[in-house]
Amino acid sequence: MDFIRGEQAATSVTRAPSLPVYTQEEVTKHSSIDNGVWVTYKGSVYDITEFVAIHPGGDKILLAAGGALEPFWALYAVHGQDHVLDILSEYKVGILQPEDCKKQEMANPADPYSTDPPRHPALVVNSSKPFNGETPPSLLTDSYITPSALFFKRNHLPVPQVDPAKYKLQLEGLPEGTVSLTLDDLKSRFPKHTVTATLQCAGNRRSDMNKIKQVKGLNWGVGAIGNATWSGARLRDVLSFYGFGPEVAAKARHVQFEGLDQDTTGTPYAASIPLSKAVSEEGDVLLAYEMNGEDLPADHGYPVRVVVPGIVGARNVKWLGKIVVSEEESKSHWQQNDYKGFSPGTDWDTVDFKSAPAIQELPVQSAITWPEEGSTVDHSMKEVTLKGYAWSGGGREVVRVDVSLDGGKTWHVAELQNSETGQKPGPPPPPGRAWAWKLWEITIPLPEGAQELELVCKAVDSSYNSQPDTVSPIWNLRGVLSTAWHRVKVKVE
Amino acid sequence: MDFIRGEQAATSVTRAPSLPVYTQEEVTKHSSIDNGVWVTYKGSVYDITEFVAIHPGGDKILLAAGGALEPFWALYAVHGQDHVLDILSEYKVGILQPEDCKKQEMANPADPYSTDPPRHPALVVNSSKPFNGETPPSLLTDSYITPSALFFKRNHLPVPQVDPAKYKLQLEGLPEGTVSLTLDDLKSRFPKHTVTATLQCAGNRRSDMNKIKQVKGLNWGVGAIGNATWSGARLRDVLSFYGFGPEVAAKARHVQFEGLDQDTTGTPYAASIPLSKAVSEEGDVLLAYEMNGEDLPADHGYPVRVVVPGIVGARNVKWLGKIVVSEEESKSHWQQNDYKGFSPGTDWDTVDFKSAPAIQELPVQSAITWPEEGSTVDHSMKEVTLKGYAWSGGGREVVRVDVSLDGGKTWHVAELQNSETGQKPGPPPPPGRAWAWKLWEITIPLPEGAQELELVCKAVDSSYNSQPDTVSPIWNLRGVLSTAWHRVKVKVE
Repeated sequence: MDFIRGEQAATSVTRAPSLPVYTQEEVTKHSSIDNGVWVTYKGSVYDITEFVAIHPGGDKILLAAGGALEPFWALYAVHGQDHVLDILSEYKVGILQPEDCKKQEMANPADPYSTDPPRHPALVVNSSKPFNGETPPSLLTDSYITPSALFFKRNHLPVPQVDPAKYKLQLEGLPEGTVSLTLDDLKSRFPKHTVTATLQCAGNRRSDMNKIKQVKGLNWGVGAIGNATWSGARLRDVLSFYGFGPEVAAKARHVQFEGLDQDTTGTPYAASIPLSKAVSEEGDVLLAYEMNGEDLPADHGYPVRVVVPGIVGARNVKWLGKIVVSEEESKSHWQQNDYKGFSPGTDWDTVDFKSAPAIQELPVQSAITWPEEGSTVDHSMKEVTLKGYAWSGGGREVVRVDVSLDGGKTWHVAELQNSETGQKPGPPPPPGRAWAWKLWEITIPLPEGAQELELVCKAVDSSYNSQPDTVSPIWNLRGVLSTAWHRVKVKVE
Repeated sequence: MDFIRGEQAATSVTRAPSLPVYTQEEVTKHSSIDNGVWVTYKGSVYDITEFVAIHPGGDKILLAAGGALEPFWALYAVHGQDHVLDILSEYKVGILQPEDCKKQEMANPADPYSTDPPRHPALVVNSSKPFNGETPPSLLTDSYITPSALFFKRNHLPVPQVDPAKYKLQLEGLPEGTVSLTLDDLKSRFPKHTVTATLQCAGNRRSDMNKIKQVKGLNWGVGAIGNATWSGARLRDVLSFYGFGPEVAAKARHVQFEGLDQDTTGTPYAASIPLSKAVSEEGDVLLAYEMNGEDLPADHGYPVRVVVPGIVGARNVKWLGKIVVSEEESKSHWQQNDYKGFSPGTDWDTVDFKSAPAIQELPVQSAITWPEEGSTVDHSMKEVTLKGYAWSGGGREVVRVDVSLDGGKTWHVAELQNSETGQKPGPPPPPGRAWAWKLWEITIPLPEGAQELELVCKAVDSSYNSQPDTVSPIWNLRGVLSTAWHRVKVKVE
């Protein structure tokens, strides 16, 4: 093997006749860092040993070592992009012999997403496999409670098919050992609680960060957020019923959740939350089986999901299969090596995922949903009406939204709304339990002679935290926590 | 009375011979909004009826209606400023007759601050009566635990003289009716708990807001913050002992505190906190009788103060005289009409104090304590070391401090410290109970050829809240919550 990597950097994935031909058996020998990490893709062989350390998805890449990429990329469709193929091409070292190519094609599984449910056509699709779609801004603030079909969908894997009659929820880490609950147990043994809570993806508004400098992740706009009523058993009731008490509390620190959605190796989506949140009377954590008064839709975790109010979407595990009370956080990729925030100066070469805490409570957020970027305001109307949403994590109530027409030089205070339009305002939430967003609206006279407006909104929560002015200083390599002032430019004509 | 206000606007407080002479009796008739509000000051008579609504201190001004300002201004020395006298001069309507002037002088009380304790000469004094002084930046980060004598002092009134043998703490709003505790009761009946907690004044770093546009309040630098160990009885233990339980909890929402420091009318300093914070096992609210291992110093509330970790200094009532469990917030001026945040567009003509919540938890904060503004960095050293502090309210742990030498274009991550220098790091606090600040330090290579540096720091807390970039968009008329990035300019020579 005396091909020089630099010579190959410019070659494409089309077969170069000068490259050696390998058998599957030879490729399979290279399945560890020590022996080198080789993979195959569409008949080519790649030595990706040096890429492993900088793989955005972490060392999950080693699952494919010595074998084909296709089954994994079928699950993580983010790989089907030109720049991923460009990166891969730099590592090409050979050709897979034709007989082994054919065998691979025979063995490749059927599309694991073929049983995914149908989706509402209004959703803006950011990725179809796994499915990730958001609510269009103009629909987002049409109702205080987001209709389930329009509520953003953030799936990491294919939607599992769950037969409610056979559904079992495993419970581990309590004095009684492993306990198994049916859906009926959950509904009949525990009081049904209903909480109105906003869920937001850590990557909501990531597109604003992409404008500064490319990040890794789905290019969400402002619609990876929604507000719903969730009903189910309280997690603390279930844990107490099965023996949670001071003895367990003395050692345990976290509650881990595993989904029934799995990758090709059987690894489930998983995450954890602090024990204190899970068992607090004021934490309102639900094992939810209803969304907006109906069974959970398939995309939202049917038959049971966790709803952790005030906490990032990623911990609200869907298609819940297992709960583990533990001394440790979840070991999952999504808890350890994803959904964390870093300094703008940290890049993929220097990042140490252990140096940052897993995102739990989210910071204060707001966005303008109307008018939309690039639209035109009628000058003869003399005034302009803006609409949007505002929310903060940790149960901190939004207490004020400031709005500007001039890029942030002067500010106006918007009207806040905590119920459907036309209904009387809801009661104020108890301190620290403001789980639902506020919609806001304001009508402001048009400045004399303005031809363009830079609309801005920023929210303040009950701890008087406010949003940062600009994106660059909070930019981070995963594009999470994108909470700078939301800016929308419109023309006046 | 046909003098026209406009004609008098330009006159000074020196007597104008053309003005009418009034008796004290005549002045006293004008002691309400309906009859007009007149006051006297140094022999002149003022009709301040129209000023009442825009008095920064609220309608406390009515306490002086029909009488002399001197006893009140003796308490609130902020009034002894040229611009206050300028405002007053606009309202002058006459002269007090000489006999009544003499009577007033005889009746004026001795300096109510004459019994205040001595203070450490290193404190930077912002107001001497009442005493308000802060720690110099360079001393602030010399120790993780701020020495009591250097800990910032924020008094609203004269320091009360309390005989510990006669001290009584009143407790109201519990089933047993009014209860009275001695200092010995507090120390002997309840376990002694120790909490390391940072206290910060809502006005810390107000001077940055003053640079944008003048605000009302003491011109604090970065030193109205400190970190100490506090020992005492837990408030929840005391409340439980005297009958707090589900029955009280069903109705009560707040716990009010009254100090023994009073103004001339006998009105004490007072504030309240949410009941949920007061009675939470994780809230760590103390009735503290020790600071840094010794009896509380006179300026810090001897013999007993409330310490409410994670909450703005203003609710940590000193010289505690009374606790009231109540359905309502404290009615005090400092709870209702002060210590609240507003939009930058809100001014004293438009402010509605009822529209904003009383500040409780503070937002994430950080500051550079070294080097100081305007100082010079030695170019031959090739690098520069920066030091500072970072803290967030509500028990949210500081997880990262970003530092820039170029005004925020590029960022470096500082080392965080949660114990005294040279000691091993303290254990991480439980989630939501990070009451103490972190000190930070970083050494960064000097950029080639730089002649001036704009040093910047910004902190991120465990909810990933971050500080706003600039001061103007969070400017507010009281100059509270000044948490924009801290910027320090230094020369390189």
